Amino acid sequence: MAQQADITAMRRAVELAARGLGATSPNPVVGCVITDASGHQVGEGFHQGAGGPHAEVHALRAAGVLARGGTAYVTLEPCDHTGRTGPCSQALIEAGISRVVYAVGDPNPQASGGADTLRAAGVEVEQGLLEDEAEAGNLAWLTSVRRGRPFVRWKYAATLDGRIAAADGTSRWISSAESRADVHRLRAEADAVVVGGGTLRTDDPHLAVRGIENATQPLRVALDTRAELLPTARILDDAAPTLLVVGEDADTRHLPDVELLRLPLHDGRIGVHELLTQLHARDVRSILLEGGPTLAGAFIAAGAVDQVVGYLAPVLLGAGPAALADAGITTITEALRLDVTETARVGSDLRITATLKGA
Amino acid sequence: MAQQADITAMRRAVELAARGLGATSPNPVVGCVITDASGHQVGEGFHQGAGGPHAEVHALRAAGVLARGGTAYVTLEPCDHTGRTGPCSQALIEAGISRVVYAVGDPNPQASGGADTLRAAGVEVEQGLLEDEAEAGNLAWLTSVRRGRPFVRWKYAATLDGRIAAADGTSRWISSAESRADVHRLRAEADAVVVGGGTLRTDDPHLAVRGIENATQPLRVALDTRAELLPTARILDDAAPTLLVVGEDADTRHLPDVELLRLPLHDGRIGVHELLTQLHARDVRSILLEGGPTLAGAFIAAGAVDQVVGYLAPVLLGAGPAALADAGITTITEALRLDVTETARVGSDLRITATLKGA
Repeated sequence: MAQQADITAMRRAVELAARGLGATSPNPVVGCVITDASGHQVGEGFHQGAGGPHAEVHALRAAGVLARGGTAYVTLEPCDHTGRTGPCSQALIEAGISRVVYAVGDPNPQASGGADTLRAAGVEVEQGLLEDEAEAGNLAWLTSVRRGRPFVRWKYAATLDGRIAAADGTSRWISSAESRADVHRLRAEADAVVVGGGTLRTDDPHLAVRGIENATQPLRVALDTRAELLPTARILDDAAPTLLVVGEDADTRHLPDVELLRLPLHDGRIGVHELLTQLHARDVRSILLEGGPTLAGAFIAAGAVDQVVGYLAPVLLGAGPAALADAGITTITEALRLDVTETARVGSDLRITATLKGA
Repeated sequence: MAQQADITAMRRAVELAARGLGATSPNPVVGCVITDASGHQVGEGFHQGAGGPHAEVHALRAAGVLARGGTAYVTLEPCDHTGRTGPCSQALIEAGISRVVYAVGDPNPQASGGADTLRAAGVEVEQGLLEDEAEAGNLAWLTSVRRGRPFVRWKYAATLDGRIAAADGTSRWISSAESRADVHRLRAEADAVVVGGGTLRTDDPHLAVRGIENATQPLRVALDTRAELLPTARILDDAAPTLLVVGEDADTRHLPDVELLRLPLHDGRIGVHELLTQLHARDVRSILLEGGPTLAGAFIAAGAVDQVVGYLAPVLLGAGPAALADAGITTITEALRLDVTETARVGSDLRITATLKGA
């Protein structure tokens, strides 16, 4: 039975971890709180970016000698390997920590083993406190480890009857200004933002994060099979890095200096899993899919959507394009079933987050 | 500045009023609480059905002589006219009530004037306490008075992408068992439940209320322009009254004994406002529209939907019929814009209530 003090410390660690969202790939977000032998908090920290110190090291530095005999609360099992930084298990032992409480075991075979090392050194180790909250906070990274590809969150904005535009194609504005601002938060949390050719040509999207201080800009990924992008496209500015994904034979001579990824086409389309594999190899662990109905359908058909964030406006149209097109589902038993994991009012809209069962 | 005791009493009155929902037409729902001269509650009541005593009379009977010098809290302005029962203004005066607090003024010219009568008799009268809550509780009736037609609530169940069935027409079950049970509550609150011919033929709906104790059964209204209903249709049983609305020339000789309403057809369809006028004349003040996309579209095109209750299942299909078909809206500026007035989790689904601005 967890004590209230333990819960309070771990909840703080979960909060701290969230500050790293969008900045730590290919690493997870991790938060750490250290209390001294009498239970007072003496240090805290979170992982701020790959190559930098882990959460435990930040917290130990803040605690200094007060860590001796104390407890470390960590949202993820302390690592046991030497990567760009030394193993956290060793740092905790050297600091004289006598008890380590962590929420989620490390699913990464390369990094796990920290708990065993700590125990072998006589440190008391407990696992599982606020496991669900910590898992939810690290959902993108954990999913990417389990599936061996980036976590994919599909975002859409639609009317109550599921339309993204009226019959004549007009759509400004279906969702509220607050919802449109909220999307920038989703972009900042993602390693990459992906759109398809239809959205690229229709909306000329910019896709960079605006209005969020110290945000890490995502990689802007545009699928443009025949390299039809205009050289004046907004996505080509320098507000964020851009990757243009084209068919392997596409003529790109008219394009300005932009990084290209050439992929084979299947029936004229880029393969979802080939794309995800390439992005994963580039350390992308989470994707915000901002494409239109066709691209979302292709991702769902490929089994590659882990979470849906829908901004539903209290508007009815009765005609116009639907938020989701052909996802390869023809009968109700094949429907993609999710769990509603969060709902929130955003301006006049309702934001619904639904997550794949077991994601 | 309202005192806490006043608020507590009026909130109780609003709660009491809600107990009458679905049973009082053509009257409003009304709740009443009476406190004695020292502020203790000594009586309460609500209007239980047309022809029966008004809320004030129930509460006065419960209070007896303790009402003398006390306060009456009423959700609606006490009536001033003699209908099937005597005027409440007179009953309050005769009982020796010295102060009347009511939430909402009576918009019905036939019944208003109660406040003036009370003041003329020396009773202290205040209006407006918890007005918004009381208005919301009486939304259907107030809307029917203001618009001169029944209040129309459209209910639908759909996936997150706005589909009511998969591409092959299968739909069992998109919404959860809890959502389907919740619909019976909506039926019990309505005076009439309306479906169109498509739903009638596809689903053979029953439309009566099940699983709610002491529920008032709504009038089941089925639009069946050419009287194609099978004599074995479930809607024809005696669980609730049924009204079959047919085109004026429809051949109904094959049908069993069922009440018929013959209306002229326009392009083969029944006119929404003609139907509403007829139902209003039958004392129907609130309608639950359970029809499919076509009927809902026709009501919206006619400007005759006041509230939408959507059961959204966390399911994606990408194909299949949309919840709402042609509503006569072709461009975004013509979209029907509502306000989200309630959201609730119902089983695994999300129930969204959106109300017409200014309804």
